[in-house]
Amino acid sequence: MPAFTAFGDGYCRPGGEFDNAPIGIFDSGYGGLTVAREIVKALPDESIVYFGDTARCPYGPRSLDEVDGFVQQIGAWLIERGVKIVVIACNTATAAGLTHAQQAFQVPVVGVVEPGARAAVHATTNRHVGVIATKGTIESGAYAGAIRNLDAGITVFSVPTPRFVEIAEQGIRMTEGPIEDFTSLASNVYIRPAFQEIAKEYLEPLRRCEIDTLVLGCTHFPLLKALIGGVVGRDVLLISSAKEAAKDVAEILTRRGKRAEFGHEAAYEFFTTGDDVGEFERFGARVLRMPLGSVSHVDVGSL
Amino acid sequence: MPAFTAFGDGYCRPGGEFDNAPIGIFDSGYGGLTVAREIVKALPDESIVYFGDTARCPYGPRSLDEVDGFVQQIGAWLIERGVKIVVIACNTATAAGLTHAQQAFQVPVVGVVEPGARAAVHATTNRHVGVIATKGTIESGAYAGAIRNLDAGITVFSVPTPRFVEIAEQGIRMTEGPIEDFTSLASNVYIRPAFQEIAKEYLEPLRRCEIDTLVLGCTHFPLLKALIGGVVGRDVLLISSAKEAAKDVAEILTRRGKRAEFGHEAAYEFFTTGDDVGEFERFGARVLRMPLGSVSHVDVGSL
Repeated sequence: MPAFTAFGDGYCRPGGEFDNAPIGIFDSGYGGLTVAREIVKALPDESIVYFGDTARCPYGPRSLDEVDGFVQQIGAWLIERGVKIVVIACNTATAAGLTHAQQAFQVPVVGVVEPGARAAVHATTNRHVGVIATKGTIESGAYAGAIRNLDAGITVFSVPTPRFVEIAEQGIRMTEGPIEDFTSLASNVYIRPAFQEIAKEYLEPLRRCEIDTLVLGCTHFPLLKALIGGVVGRDVLLISSAKEAAKDVAEILTRRGKRAEFGHEAAYEFFTTGDDVGEFERFGARVLRMPLGSVSHVDVGSL
Repeated sequence: MPAFTAFGDGYCRPGGEFDNAPIGIFDSGYGGLTVAREIVKALPDESIVYFGDTARCPYGPRSLDEVDGFVQQIGAWLIERGVKIVVIACNTATAAGLTHAQQAFQVPVVGVVEPGARAAVHATTNRHVGVIATKGTIESGAYAGAIRNLDAGITVFSVPTPRFVEIAEQGIRMTEGPIEDFTSLASNVYIRPAFQEIAKEYLEPLRRCEIDTLVLGCTHFPLLKALIGGVVGRDVLLISSAKEAAKDVAEILTRRGKRAEFGHEAAYEFFTTGDDVGEFERFGARVLRMPLGSVSHVDVGSL
């Protein structure tokens, strides 16, 4: 789809302008590749620079101040590489550093919290919304704040589910090949029992609260979608913040006249602070569901 | 377009459910008909109940507390008529009463401020955003808050432009026939000079602030779009909160599985607290750009 060129309809800037600069995306590791995947699907002409801060992963248990510092470092690094927009593809990092990043950087900075919150507000009918995320994200109150900011009548039930991250990570390591349609992990004989054991403990309270919408407030969780859906039941709509953030990125670039040219050959570059570049390439391909191609190491000390 | 029925993609509730109940829309008078018009365009199968509180118009100079009370009254009246969603098609009333209405009512309540703010955030490239609105809306800080909430790096320049409301009202009265493409007023020999005289005073400071995006933060202002655009220049993108709010209504109904059935024959009903039903019908048709059909009087005392 070409960038819109309709004049003066308030939807986008006139002139049919293009910008082939890459989209910058970062996360503490592989999780943000679920966001990258949605961006690739929504915007196939766009180049991407992906940064996985594997050496300092996970961000979830760290203090918000420390993670805010990481966001500043990595945002600056991406902007130096010429990205036209920065996507914080990590809920913990969004909660910790989005506001500061927006103040510090000249390019637009998009997080995953607000898009996911907005989708949940639009979707709930009984106005009981659940949120599952890391401890850091839940304790920041970012989702509850963003949801109530949009609809003051919604009751938010938040549950930290840190072990889901471990299970998703384990799943990435143990599942050979691309994690297709988010069902591979559900049928994995090692993952399924581990998941079931703790899912009840985590999700049963949410069922009792009669939520009708559940925000997957961690970029790892779309990988567990089939498993989580199996426990909460078909009546609960699962919101993927990854997908919603990708839609926002598309809208921002379109409105600003900053989409890549139609037919532009997208280039994908991946960077990891981890020592094992081969591992990042192998595991990352499972989440992105396509070969990563170029993966390079970046030393944390050089940020 | 039928309601989406895609299963489990997080975009909407499964099952292809429908709801032919009307959409409730209200404003202090005719201004909100710019919102009604965008909703008719976006959702042609939906029935509408429109309430114009003409007897107490304008809301702009009133206290926020008083307007909040009106929102509660009219919202309850609309819900009693069975609407499935309430649209506060008035920026002043949104700023004054949205949060309270969301807490008080069971159906979703949509205002015009947040959708307009979000569109401006997505569209600005130099992050200098202007807002023009009534005194009440500007002084509430609702737009500045909503914009900075989405992008903390944006500078918001707000200017109360109360006389634009008078000019738009005058234009509605003086322009025979539908106000086509918002250009009729621009060519009106009475409106144009009156507008030009005060537009410089209002808009020149915004030009000097080098805004690249201007939110029309009053539902009357889309009627003056061609005139305002002529003064601020082609480089400034004008955001119509009316159009953005209509998009949000469409998304909310779609996500909840509450769209009217495809091909459902939409019924439009109009109510005014003003004594002159014939005048409401005549002037309203100019803003909506179609005959209103059924218009009834509602006594303010009965609310």
